[in-house]
Amino acid sequence: MALLKREDRGAVAHLTMTSPSNLNALSDGMLAAIQEEFDRLAEDRSIRVIVIAGDGRAFCPGHDLKEMTRGRANEDGGAAYFADLFARCSTMMQTIPRLPQPVIAQVHGIAAAAGCQLVASCDMAVAAEGTRFGVNGVNIGLFCSTPMVALSRNIPRKQAFEMLTTGSFIDAARAAELGLINHAVPEAELATKTAELADLVASKLGSAVKIGKQAFYEQIQMPLEAAYAYTGEVMVENMMHRDTVEGIQAFIDKRDPEWTQ
Amino acid sequence: MALLKREDRGAVAHLTMTSPSNLNALSDGMLAAIQEEFDRLAEDRSIRVIVIAGDGRAFCPGHDLKEMTRGRANEDGGAAYFADLFARCSTMMQTIPRLPQPVIAQVHGIAAAAGCQLVASCDMAVAAEGTRFGVNGVNIGLFCSTPMVALSRNIPRKQAFEMLTTGSFIDAARAAELGLINHAVPEAELATKTAELADLVASKLGSAVKIGKQAFYEQIQMPLEAAYAYTGEVMVENMMHRDTVEGIQAFIDKRDPEWTQ
Amino acid sequence: MALLKREDRGAVAHLTMTSPSNLNALSDGMLAAIQEEFDRLAEDRSIRVIVIAGDGRAFCPGHDLKEMTRGRANEDGGAAYFADLFARCSTMMQTIPRLPQPVIAQVHGIAAAAGCQLVASCDMAVAAEGTRFGVNGVNIGLFCSTPMVALSRNIPRKQAFEMLTTGSFIDAARAAELGLINHAVPEAELATKTAELADLVASKLGSAVKIGKQAFYEQIQMPLEAAYAYTGEVMVENMMHRDTVEGIQAFIDKRDPEWTQ
Repeated sequence: MALLKREDRGAVAHLTMTSPSNLNALSDGMLAAIQEEFDRLAEDRSIRVIVIAGDGRAFCPGHDLKEMTRGRANEDGGAAYFADLFARCSTMMQTIPRLPQPVIAQVHGIAAAAGCQLVASCDMAVAAEGTRFGVNGVNIGLFCSTPMVALSRNIPRKQAFEMLTTGSFIDAARAAELGLINHAVPEAELATKTAELADLVASKLGSAVKIGKQAFYEQIQMPLEAAYAYTGEVMVENMMHRDTVEGIQAFIDKRDPEWTQ
Repeated sequence: MALLKREDRGAVAHLTMTSPSNLNALSDGMLAAIQEEFDRLAEDRSIRVIVIAGDGRAFCPGHDLKEMTRGRANEDGGAAYFADLFARCSTMMQTIPRLPQPVIAQVHGIAAAAGCQLVASCDMAVAAEGTRFGVNGVNIGLFCSTPMVALSRNIPRKQAFEMLTTGSFIDAARAAELGLINHAVPEAELATKTAELADLVASKLGSAVKIGKQAFYEQIQMPLEAAYAYTGEVMVENMMHRDTVEGIQAFIDKRDPEWTQ
Repeated sequence: MALLKREDRGAVAHLTMTSPSNLNALSDGMLAAIQEEFDRLAEDRSIRVIVIAGDGRAFCPGHDLKEMTRGRANEDGGAAYFADLFARCSTMMQTIPRLPQPVIAQVHGIAAAAGCQLVASCDMAVAAEGTRFGVNGVNIGLFCSTPMVALSRNIPRKQAFEMLTTGSFIDAARAAELGLINHAVPEAELATKTAELADLVASKLGSAVKIGKQAFYEQIQMPLEAAYAYTGEVMVENMMHRDTVEGIQAFIDKRDPEWTQ
């Protein structure tokens, strides 16, 4: 059975991890399935927003520890396999900010370790109120070093440090307070609220969102002056888009824009 | 009529954008008026704090779209004009952290797009409770790429991303929670509360505030070790100021300092 | 009398600044005592977590102004002494993230200026509800330029700027909201709650916490791609630790791990 289901509704691709037996662990197969779909979506101009959710009791508990442990049987104790695994996982996580479309995590149950990293790596996230978030690798002696890259770029330092060194979980309300997710909603409304956010973003001019998302992650790593020089060029380019010309004219004329996209 | 009014009260310069007919849009004229006043204030040693507010129903809705659209009549479709416009706007925004005096935004009504960027660019901000903040360019197909430079240096990533890609507005209470402003106050108290904050900062030793503000923005872009090496030198320089010698001695003597400034 | 008391309970070293007569000011002697103990602890493999607290009415009010003022009698007005003092202080502050063990500040009363910097520099902090935090050097004409290095890496910009330029204090609840501390607790529970947090972290695999803490501060200063390349290597190294092999296997076997550390 496929590990990842894709269902397009309008311009939104809804991805669902469908491996409830291991709570949608990021196994070799799951990582490959997500990467493959992301690579396909990067070229798919009909899709403007991506949602990623999990089937069953949990969003994602992180890596598949049983599968990882089998790697220890290799001659090198698994070192080469682990290096390759973490490289594939990090590539997948970094694919998200590089995708032209915004990616929204739709989270429920548990988002732990690399599963919490997946939430942190998405551009936005909506979670059911009962959801528990943790970077709990420290509990089994494996510090969540790669997940902390994404986590520490979402929430303040001391709060990230506590989660990483205690392995403690926080709930969705606290995750929203800290900046790890955008909204905590009742579980019964999770799919609806996430779809509403996705549809809202999908209703905007796709070319503007695309140019803006790319610029968001570029500029955030630049010193102030370089960030302004760069985004100034992005603004000029955006101004010259035919649909932007129409969008601004429609606003001045107090009518709806007629966009070609 | 002048687009910008300046009224000095003690060591505080209160600037008011006075173009209520277009809600104090950042037109070519308004940008020039603000830049000119900032450049004058940079040399004005009698002023220790700057407040910037807007006359009429709103603080600032961003650029003047009608004026921008007229630029499209140029041979190049406006590209050179837009490049120049965004460069002038970004220069004005970057002038704020470079000014020797702290700049406080006094915000009411609407702070949208480059108007929201102006709030984010100020060192501090106080807003009336009803104020709405948005980076809503995406709604007309023009992603707020330059405003996001300032916004994403004020509030957490996912919350900034949502504002940018949905065009949704947040209120003043939420803006205070996220870090975009310092205080949300009842509209009737806005001018008073902002003036109190300005007067409080103006009551401090001007040379210390000046050296500290400059160091604030320098060090924040440095790695930790470089930041400490740099600010250590700033501390020594500050210690050698005559008024600082007096300030510390007065504290030890449990009396008020007699500052020359 | 010693300026710093050390009491080990299990794998946690509890340090207490014991100079209540000057509220545990960071005098030359206190800085040296803390630095010396930190350097000793860096080599002490029996200690997994460090707590630092203050005896008497306050945690720490910052530098010892009377002692500093005596430096002015030098031929150069104290410039060389101040440069050396701030260098020693900054070295101590930067020693905290470099220590292999997490360091938790246990804060009560007042944490001001370099005392607030000490809180900000610790990996985590717990404070009594009545505690007041400030970077109030500006009140005596000495801007808290070195403290702001740590502060501005803990809390949002506008809130840091306000504290620095007004000299105003915030309480523990607000400090927790902003990210300056992890938890505000009733004063009667301060020691217990801090010890519980310390014991929890000390119960984790020491080698994993050590590798993770180091990686935390390294990666946070890197661009995203470099951070992932680096932490990927850290994960592989962590996976090859004998105790981590056991920790993962124990988790799979649903039993407690038998760690050698």
